[in-house]
Amino acid sequence: MSETDKKKLAIIVQGGTLDKLYCAFILASTAAAMDMELHLYFTFWGLNMLVKGAMEKAGLPATYQHLEEQMKRNLARMKYPAPYEMLKRLKQSGMLKIYACSPSMEMFGIKREDLIPEVDEIAGAAAFLEVAAQADITLFI
Amino acid sequence: MSETDKKKLAIIVQGGTLDKLYCAFILASTAAAMDMELHLYFTFWGLNMLVKGAMEKAGLPATYQHLEEQMKRNLARMKYPAPYEMLKRLKQSGMLKIYACSPSMEMFGIKREDLIPEVDEIAGAAAFLEVAAQADITLFI
Amino acid sequence: MSETDKKKLAIIVQGGTLDKLYCAFILASTAAAMDMELHLYFTFWGLNMLVKGAMEKAGLPATYQHLEEQMKRNLARMKYPAPYEMLKRLKQSGMLKIYACSPSMEMFGIKREDLIPEVDEIAGAAAFLEVAAQADITLFI
Repeated sequence: MSETDKKKLAIIVQGGTLDKLYCAFILASTAAAMDMELHLYFTFWGLNMLVKGAMEKAGLPATYQHLEEQMKRNLARMKYPAPYEMLKRLKQSGMLKIYACSPSMEMFGIKREDLIPEVDEIAGAAAFLEVAAQADITLFI
Repeated sequence: MSETDKKKLAIIVQGGTLDKLYCAFILASTAAAMDMELHLYFTFWGLNMLVKGAMEKAGLPATYQHLEEQMKRNLARMKYPAPYEMLKRLKQSGMLKIYACSPSMEMFGIKREDLIPEVDEIAGAAAFLEVAAQADITLFI
Repeated sequence: MSETDKKKLAIIVQGGTLDKLYCAFILASTAAAMDMELHLYFTFWGLNMLVKGAMEKAGLPATYQHLEEQMKRNLARMKYPAPYEMLKRLKQSGMLKIYACSPSMEMFGIKREDLIPEVDEIAGAAAFLEVAAQADITLFI
């Protein structure tokens, strides 16, 4: 089967909280294990999570703030990998392309050198829509 | 028309607030009336709503907390069905399959016997991605 | 190429905060520039943003409230168009159809005359699902 025949999962990661990051990365990891091609486009709060050191500080949204400490303790007890660990493993699978949203970078004053090295491409929404239009599953998280 | 020729709607219910539940269930109810096959995969905050008695206590997210009482009064005045009522009716339609996300259950310490009886299957993300890759519409709510 | 051969982007705008509106409208503007057909279905908090004067008051969600003033200053400095300006330009492109969710209008007591004139159709979820089942990309924002 040629590369282009693989199933494709395209995710816009707009959220920047721990729950949204885990949802995106668990779906992506599962899809990688199913030999799917992965495209993650980080925008807005998600883009802010691509700044070096930011993902390590991700917390829960205001609605669930009171559960944050308990969740972090549970995750530690389960030895659950942190979001950035999951992203690095995904990159090693060779199945994942990471896009950083250029308009978001401008809006938040974030530069290329601020981002983690795993980012593959700084791109506007057009690059992502091209991919999404060919994808088997597209999600906005 | 064979079962497999029906249009398919696949929804990841990640949110656990009243607005997200209503969005998911109204879309699903409408799709059922259009004779679509329905697959709802409950994860994270959504998974927590499958615990017995939890859906009845669902409220609005922090951003809209101040509107919660008014919304609940409006819904009662309109005799709008509660989320769990909608879900039970959907199950009766025979069009809906409900999946409970197993990694979320582990993360929150939730067991099979804690869940409402309408759950069809406890499953990881792979089961859902298989369905979603064949669906006509896939949403992350 | 006939009208029906164009690629289609269908978005459910459920969120009513500035970040969600910008995501929806930037994606839609980009898609319009790519000659895609656009369908925006406003529901719940998104529907509330179609009330005259509401979009101008949109803010950030509770989780990011503390960043609201800074973001608004950045956007003003960048002379970034406001959400309603973007929506009006999109309408002028002739590529966009705006749907207002009728159950949401009933739930919030909003009438036709309360809505901005750019709305094309007041419709239930069925009208949108018909479109989404034919769309190349469907997102829930």
